Amino acid sequence: MQKLLIVKIGGNIIDNEAELSGFLESFAHIAHRKILVHGGGKTASALSKQLGIEPEMVNGRRITDAETLKIVTMVYGGLINKIIVAGLQAFGCNAIGLTGADANILPAHKREGSDIDYGFVGDIENDKIPSGTLALLIENKIVPVFAPVTHDQKGQLLNTNADTIAKALAVALKDFYDVELIYCFEKQGVLKNKENENIIFETIRSSEYAALKNDGTITDGMIPKLDNAFDAITMGVKSVRIMHAHGLAGISFNHKPGGTLLYD
Amino acid sequence: MQKLLIVKIGGNIIDNEAELSGFLESFAHIAHRKILVHGGGKTASALSKQLGIEPEMVNGRRITDAETLKIVTMVYGGLINKIIVAGLQAFGCNAIGLTGADANILPAHKREGSDIDYGFVGDIENDKIPSGTLALLIENKIVPVFAPVTHDQKGQLLNTNADTIAKALAVALKDFYDVELIYCFEKQGVLKNKENENIIFETIRSSEYAALKNDGTITDGMIPKLDNAFDAITMGVKSVRIMHAHGLAGISFNHKPGGTLLYD
Repeated sequence: MQKLLIVKIGGNIIDNEAELSGFLESFAHIAHRKILVHGGGKTASALSKQLGIEPEMVNGRRITDAETLKIVTMVYGGLINKIIVAGLQAFGCNAIGLTGADANILPAHKREGSDIDYGFVGDIENDKIPSGTLALLIENKIVPVFAPVTHDQKGQLLNTNADTIAKALAVALKDFYDVELIYCFEKQGVLKNKENENIIFETIRSSEYAALKNDGTITDGMIPKLDNAFDAITMGVKSVRIMHAHGLAGISFNHKPGGTLLYD
Repeated sequence: MQKLLIVKIGGNIIDNEAELSGFLESFAHIAHRKILVHGGGKTASALSKQLGIEPEMVNGRRITDAETLKIVTMVYGGLINKIIVAGLQAFGCNAIGLTGADANILPAHKREGSDIDYGFVGDIENDKIPSGTLALLIENKIVPVFAPVTHDQKGQLLNTNADTIAKALAVALKDFYDVELIYCFEKQGVLKNKENENIIFETIRSSEYAALKNDGTITDGMIPKLDNAFDAITMGVKSVRIMHAHGLAGISFNHKPGGTLLYD
């Protein structure tokens, strides 16, 4: 099977023009088949505030009301997605920007039955992802770039976490490609100790993960990220790498990429 | 050759939720190969004003400064494009939303050498449009939906008139498909007399057009629209239809579509 890299970048890279450009250059130079998934960054929050909409958070999660969904669609699906696509095109990478509504790639349903009403938030229907459409693009050297927006197939756009989208794509394509899922962020990998940014786990196995959560080694924002990663592994993705965005340059030159490798 | 309909809709339809939904249903039901190109509407101007940016017009044309380009990219490339795509998906049409940066479909250059600095406005490089990429999507029953944004292949997004995009796509695909270019707007067709909305030209030939401009029958906003249309015809597109958006329902049921047919 051909190797396929699914790379997710977060807001901290997107918010920094020089960092973003360096990242896009590295991504463009990766010789393998590839997909990019991007998050939001501070632009959406800043625009919300300019328009007088205060972000509403419950348990650390943003509530997506109708106005917030508009902003998410404009900023993530429009501005950021197209800046990334035009940037990749400048580096010779034939990117195509997509939300999950485009070519019906990420069918989802509005999250229901939770104690909290998250608003227009979508949970992906993993078994409905059209892997053939994705393969059609990829095999024609067109590189999908996903904004964190999905749809319910009835005309409603929905806000969906970018880490979750990357996971869903990895699972949907695992039978067609040798998928490597890569979460890029602002740290070197999964830290062994929050006090020291330089010491990371080289690997974490599924069997080790629960203990690391229980003893407080892995906490806060790392938990949903690693939950997503190990979910992907449980669903058949061979490995997930959590690493600094700068590590992508290593991959594009076939060097050791660094970061923390998660596997079963 | 297979028939391909390239349909352009303008802001007046987009701004009206019920009109837009009816239009999308008609478009979704058209059995031929098809492309949709949409304009902007009032949303971009409204958002500009909310953010304190006053639209700057010179000779009836909007000047696109950096802030305006951001708004155009967000609203046209993000919000409106994705609302249309999700709406078409709900009607069973496998739409994919694109700007000209996506898959490098509309390479352009920033307009230079004019007396007026229009800002980030792009003129399309017609001979660089990758018709193969468009055909790949179309032949796989994926329906391209274009927002009026192009790029310069060096990372710069550009604002480009939607009528012009529809024309460029028609010309680029005329050797591969039997292309019908259709401009939908809020009138029944090209009026014979501005005082009477119900009496339109059934046809206008290239040879008749100059005289109709000279004698004042065709004026104002109709001139750039018809200039674009006859440009397409000069460049080899067989015919262009100018009609009310409601006429699309006729086409989807193979009835007589009405409107004004332009040809050589």
